[in-house]
Amino acid sequence: MVFSVTVLGSSSALPTSNRYLTAHVLNVDERFFLIDCGEGTQLQLRKYKAKFSRLNHIFITHLHGDHMFGLPGLISTFNLLGRKHDLHIYAHTNLEKILKQFLAHFFTHLDFQIIFHALNHDSKELIFEDSKISVESFPLKHRIPTCGFIFREKARMKNIRKEMIEYHKIPVREIVNIKRGDDFVTDEGIVIPNSNLTFDQESTRSYAFCSDTAYLENILPIIQNVDLLYHEATFADEDSDRALETLHSTASQAATIAKLSNAKKLLIGHFSARYKDVKSLVIQAQKIFPNTLAAEEGLEITL
Amino acid sequence: MVFSVTVLGSSSALPTSNRYLTAHVLNVDERFFLIDCGEGTQLQLRKYKAKFSRLNHIFITHLHGDHMFGLPGLISTFNLLGRKHDLHIYAHTNLEKILKQFLAHFFTHLDFQIIFHALNHDSKELIFEDSKISVESFPLKHRIPTCGFIFREKARMKNIRKEMIEYHKIPVREIVNIKRGDDFVTDEGIVIPNSNLTFDQESTRSYAFCSDTAYLENILPIIQNVDLLYHEATFADEDSDRALETLHSTASQAATIAKLSNAKKLLIGHFSARYKDVKSLVIQAQKIFPNTLAAEEGLEITL
Repeated sequence: MVFSVTVLGSSSALPTSNRYLTAHVLNVDERFFLIDCGEGTQLQLRKYKAKFSRLNHIFITHLHGDHMFGLPGLISTFNLLGRKHDLHIYAHTNLEKILKQFLAHFFTHLDFQIIFHALNHDSKELIFEDSKISVESFPLKHRIPTCGFIFREKARMKNIRKEMIEYHKIPVREIVNIKRGDDFVTDEGIVIPNSNLTFDQESTRSYAFCSDTAYLENILPIIQNVDLLYHEATFADEDSDRALETLHSTASQAATIAKLSNAKKLLIGHFSARYKDVKSLVIQAQKIFPNTLAAEEGLEITL
Repeated sequence: MVFSVTVLGSSSALPTSNRYLTAHVLNVDERFFLIDCGEGTQLQLRKYKAKFSRLNHIFITHLHGDHMFGLPGLISTFNLLGRKHDLHIYAHTNLEKILKQFLAHFFTHLDFQIIFHALNHDSKELIFEDSKISVESFPLKHRIPTCGFIFREKARMKNIRKEMIEYHKIPVREIVNIKRGDDFVTDEGIVIPNSNLTFDQESTRSYAFCSDTAYLENILPIIQNVDLLYHEATFADEDSDRALETLHSTASQAATIAKLSNAKKLLIGHFSARYKDVKSLVIQAQKIFPNTLAAEEGLEITL
């Protein structure tokens, strides 16, 4: 099953000639989950071949323009494409009013419903789940209320050892139960432990999105052991005073969070336009957390 | 003096993987005039090297999202860049309320003034002029009130023939008057006609922007003899029923307007996303008006 993240925008508030505004798209088995929606997101979704008809959930970290000015255009495009099914937006409670007020000037009605889900800015909360993934939000520390998100693949059923089906003459109706973890009891009443009958699927995958935020150790227990940690690194270490002032993070701070949370891989982004080249930020982070890479438009990380 | 048009977006309402939403930028002697501002315009302005600090006038044809959803992001970027000087926006009167209401959610204040100029949708009107250019708006025919714009370079002062300065011993203080068209009177009272003393500068240049609009012959006297006519051609001739229904134009209709108005060059654009390739639209237009070319991102036309 595909579980991959594509970076659509890697810039902070001021875009550059090659860095777009913040947006990531997570592909889970060809369903697309959008995280933030800076201006130009619909153009990038098109460029990197996300299927608009399979994008039903948008997660907005906070209501700064560089994370959400792409929403009116994307919603307009959904309407032009004939969308009929619901669109779910998870964001600060104010977004509903802001967006409805703005869109009312352009559309007498949309052919689909937008379902707004207000985020909880006080504590971690499960905000979405289905048979394949769960999504939790958790508070970050920025100038306005901001949430991070963690996407976790659900544990899938075990694989059954085919030779055991024949050997123990396991009826078809029992197979689903065994895949779920049950033991098998033969006609003679002998219990065959599940561990003899199955082998585990590959481990479940997870991806956490932490932007915009100051250095915040509170998030460590929530994001522990994540496969991919995206953490903002707006500033290089030498500009830590600016990071402090604006409630952003430095490259070393992002790497420290990755190290302390035992992440497998760190992706840094939301780079200030002052850095023509972000190599030095990656080097600063790698000194603390070697498996670090820099976000750039079109980068796809398959987990 | 530079007088050039760069296409920033050539798509109609639905962008594609290589066509952005409507925006053109006119460079008049390194001052930049923006016409329409679809989503992503600030990214395209950056890509094609327009100087943000020298962009003071934005002309919005009409209040459909694909012509103006780039405004909040562009205004936000101006603010981040430390803009202090006024920004003039020429648009339908409703824009002021829509934009102020939306921006109020994101900025407690901007460090610069936005001066809104309400367009006249009943007749042609001079909306801007300085020493180098004039801009007129004129009504088009679309589903909501829409204006076209015509940018005209002003007649520049004549060039003086240097050999005549010496021959007639013309004092320095007289030179500006002669360049403006005055005759010169010698100390002996002899009148030297201006035509003996000067030669004309190259002719003045002009550019008209007509989008979105149905076929409309009313505009012919206004745009007569323009150097560059941008006219929308959302549809190919075989889709003329869709053009009629949505109050857009076909390629042949755009070309007919170019021919009847005696334009020097026609640029067609605002292409429907249904056309993967717009060659056939160019061929249809060229049958009526040979000097036609298709808008594409980054195309620069120097007049």
